[in-house]
Amino acid sequence: MQPSISPLSPEPFIRNSWYVASWAHELSADSPLAVTIVGEPLVLFRDDMGSAVALRDCCCHRNAPLSLGRCEAGQIRCLYHGLLFDGSGRCVAIPGQQHVPSTYRVRAFPVAEAGGWLWVWMGDPRRADPQCIPQAAVCDTSAWDMRTGALDLHASYLLVSDNLCDHSHVAFLHAATFGGGDSRIADTYPKISPLERGMRVERWLTGRAKIEQWLPDEAGEIANNKGLDLWLTYDYLVPGILIMHSEIHWGGTAQRSDFLAPQAEPLHADLARQAVTPVTEKTSRYFFALGPRRSESLATPGLPDQMFEALQRGFHEDQRMLEAQQRNLERWSIDCSGAIQHDRGVYLMRAMIDRLLAQERTATGQSDLHVAS
Amino acid sequence: MQPSISPLSPEPFIRNSWYVASWAHELSADSPLAVTIVGEPLVLFRDDMGSAVALRDCCCHRNAPLSLGRCEAGQIRCLYHGLLFDGSGRCVAIPGQQHVPSTYRVRAFPVAEAGGWLWVWMGDPRRADPQCIPQAAVCDTSAWDMRTGALDLHASYLLVSDNLCDHSHVAFLHAATFGGGDSRIADTYPKISPLERGMRVERWLTGRAKIEQWLPDEAGEIANNKGLDLWLTYDYLVPGILIMHSEIHWGGTAQRSDFLAPQAEPLHADLARQAVTPVTEKTSRYFFALGPRRSESLATPGLPDQMFEALQRGFHEDQRMLEAQQRNLERWSIDCSGAIQHDRGVYLMRAMIDRLLAQERTATGQSDLHVAS
Amino acid sequence: MQPSISPLSPEPFIRNSWYVASWAHELSADSPLAVTIVGEPLVLFRDDMGSAVALRDCCCHRNAPLSLGRCEAGQIRCLYHGLLFDGSGRCVAIPGQQHVPSTYRVRAFPVAEAGGWLWVWMGDPRRADPQCIPQAAVCDTSAWDMRTGALDLHASYLLVSDNLCDHSHVAFLHAATFGGGDSRIADTYPKISPLERGMRVERWLTGRAKIEQWLPDEAGEIANNKGLDLWLTYDYLVPGILIMHSEIHWGGTAQRSDFLAPQAEPLHADLARQAVTPVTEKTSRYFFALGPRRSESLATPGLPDQMFEALQRGFHEDQRMLEAQQRNLERWSIDCSGAIQHDRGVYLMRAMIDRLLAQERTATGQSDLHVAS
Repeated sequence: MQPSISPLSPEPFIRNSWYVASWAHELSADSPLAVTIVGEPLVLFRDDMGSAVALRDCCCHRNAPLSLGRCEAGQIRCLYHGLLFDGSGRCVAIPGQQHVPSTYRVRAFPVAEAGGWLWVWMGDPRRADPQCIPQAAVCDTSAWDMRTGALDLHASYLLVSDNLCDHSHVAFLHAATFGGGDSRIADTYPKISPLERGMRVERWLTGRAKIEQWLPDEAGEIANNKGLDLWLTYDYLVPGILIMHSEIHWGGTAQRSDFLAPQAEPLHADLARQAVTPVTEKTSRYFFALGPRRSESLATPGLPDQMFEALQRGFHEDQRMLEAQQRNLERWSIDCSGAIQHDRGVYLMRAMIDRLLAQERTATGQSDLHVAS
Repeated sequence: MQPSISPLSPEPFIRNSWYVASWAHELSADSPLAVTIVGEPLVLFRDDMGSAVALRDCCCHRNAPLSLGRCEAGQIRCLYHGLLFDGSGRCVAIPGQQHVPSTYRVRAFPVAEAGGWLWVWMGDPRRADPQCIPQAAVCDTSAWDMRTGALDLHASYLLVSDNLCDHSHVAFLHAATFGGGDSRIADTYPKISPLERGMRVERWLTGRAKIEQWLPDEAGEIANNKGLDLWLTYDYLVPGILIMHSEIHWGGTAQRSDFLAPQAEPLHADLARQAVTPVTEKTSRYFFALGPRRSESLATPGLPDQMFEALQRGFHEDQRMLEAQQRNLERWSIDCSGAIQHDRGVYLMRAMIDRLLAQERTATGQSDLHVAS
Repeated sequence: MQPSISPLSPEPFIRNSWYVASWAHELSADSPLAVTIVGEPLVLFRDDMGSAVALRDCCCHRNAPLSLGRCEAGQIRCLYHGLLFDGSGRCVAIPGQQHVPSTYRVRAFPVAEAGGWLWVWMGDPRRADPQCIPQAAVCDTSAWDMRTGALDLHASYLLVSDNLCDHSHVAFLHAATFGGGDSRIADTYPKISPLERGMRVERWLTGRAKIEQWLPDEAGEIANNKGLDLWLTYDYLVPGILIMHSEIHWGGTAQRSDFLAPQAEPLHADLARQAVTPVTEKTSRYFFALGPRRSESLATPGLPDQMFEALQRGFHEDQRMLEAQQRNLERWSIDCSGAIQHDRGVYLMRAMIDRLLAQERTATGQSDLHVAS
């Protein structure tokens, strides 16, 4: 049985999951931040220890958004009628009266800060374990000179997931950017291995005359003679984390490595970290970071910015296509003629998401998710 | 039992009521004016006596809006196919034919001009009595040098009403404008007295070092030594009329007046007149006028404009909050933890509106409202 | 029984009909073109013979729009994952695999190129006969110096049809443009004769002091003495084709011709060709062309552009009214007081459309329309 491919299913979100809410550096101690995750508007702010907290962005008095409020010593004051809330969502002061009824509280969501991201748990708070944040997603990045960004997409996170699980589209959608005019990424298949909550993708692209514009000139010249081998590997993890390593090697390295992971020192290496967070059923926020090794950026100071600009050009190609695809899917509910061979990773991830959604639907703990507020 | 606080009830409008449709000076003899009240698009124009009239903004021939039409000697001609209508809504000419069927008419709504406003009665026309326009709303304003404006809000008139019925929010939302950084307006309560179709609010704010920027300099200096007392009183009337007097007095006046209405001549006095008109269930139009005594504007010619600009800055703070609150209310139907003490005026007015809505629902005359066209 | 006048009926489109999709010159051999007809997004492109073809604008793999794709030797490649489709909608290549399943196809729509337009048949393809394209619509226009344009309207094609079937509105809506301030077009009636799929409208407007600005100066002077007669005739054909001839003659010509078609050589003659295509239930695309005889444009080179600019000014008056009328119709479902005498052509065409819609609903072939994809 095929997994569903429509992004329009009745309950499309896994609730018991950590979601990237923002880059950690986006949240200062002074100002609240409004974000929406799986349809829930949240306000993020920092408590008096500097720890990030998340509350429903809706004052329990008259529904004013707390994100228009003011941070006061680790608490947040609603700037409509002045009610003050602590990081647990408890109202601690109501102007003009001594007594604060215990019913005065807003729902709080568990938050963790790791790997440069703020993560929010949208499900049953008793299950929120920071150990469940994927290790790959929060690895040490000090050896890399990263640039970070984010993009709002009018497309379901499932369509973004599909995009990231099948890189054959690079040959077509990104022919003028990432693909560099080389269609071989669509002619062959990567190795795909299932992981507990995702999959690992590995591949060589060999004998290329030219790769990206960030390859050093001398290497480029040599490459014109000998060719270059490109090694790509990434983990993609539910509900939308991608950690990718790319390496450029002299031509012949792939063969010498038996087409397994390279043993040689690369000419160039970069790390990409990405997270797709569902905002609503039809929109998502895409967080991304990219950078070369620090040694490379020391040698070529403009390199990280140059790489990052190229990345953004490519992502705008994705954005245009994903948003057009979303519009078509809203119009034609099902128009799929079946999977093609390149869909293998796509269907693997969709099946995994479907299984997690089904688990949540049947879990006895399900009711807790919806009575809590 | 608590009154409902959601602006999303099934029939949220009192029909048997006069509503402010526009400032009278906005309607010339030459041009029709399109307005929408309680969901009904209307065209206003002036008949051959100069009296304002209101028709449904929809030609009975093919639904073209009459507001795109042309005023002709106190009648209005639809500029699609040229049908001509008088102020009662009767079609008086159809191009190319002698006979005008009696079925050719558009619904007319009673109009009154009073207090600088055009008022339209949206309910049963037999009950439309200009005497029902609140006297306070149409009082003589010749002693005041007023400025007028209007603002379109993407928020229910009920939320605007709530805002105007609880001024404690001035301490927070308007801390940088009206409030002047003084939170005492939220620490104490005004006196609230029910009126037949509304309530009267009265309060002193005493011993203030500084009040508004429009206080004369010399008084300001003195004030720094002695302090100032601010007297505020307003009537708020269903469905959304606010008439407010503010006075600044020397410190000590409140006490000498036993905290009742001041007997002394104020250092400064101003009058504010406001009307909130429901446009649709989710939008409203806010009309406002403000000015000092003419004697003050003669002494300080820039004063009325300066006061009015400050007012507009504050109203934009309200607009931002009200529209955000409306969005939250559309998302979370009920999320209220109960009333706080400052809600007293708010709930008083909501209960009055609920009672009037219930009366209309059960009235035998109800059917008349909906068969008429 | 009156025909329905609302544009909001459940199935408002005749499917078994040729619709103008674009000007033929808009579709190059290199680039696909996205259009929407009766609610169906289509991609147009040219096959290797240069013939235009139309497919549903939705790749059968993952719903990406083919109109974001690339023309390759008369086929179209989806630029998401690279699937290639021929003009019949058959998938002929899937990157990375040899086998293309026969289920891989997108729906194709019959296309014809005639009279400078691309026509698409939106119904049962077995009934698509290019002979059904109205002859009047594809007549030889080489004797005329035409200019072409198009306009997107937020109004049902039925409202545009109404507009074109009753020119009395010229006296009011276009008083400052086409009408030239002369209201006589609304005071009298044209002759209306039914055609198989439409109607013919003919009329004289006699003794006019002045007509359009494109009349030669000398004629204008003479006209001030003798007057001018204007002959107008057009065919209007379901679902929205208008072919109109206008001629200016010396005053007296109408009478000498017994008010039938003129026998004399006109002072000026022009041809207008128009097509209204339903895009969605609430929107349409209006294609138009206008020009004088080539002999006139040789004598007065600026004439065609001048006429066309005047036409566009008038059409913007129509646009404003039609879109306002559409908004009112969405708000007030029925508010019609009955037909006026000028509605004769309007009701004739509406009845014809209603009859064709009813035929399609009851046709046994109806099911074919909806199972095909």
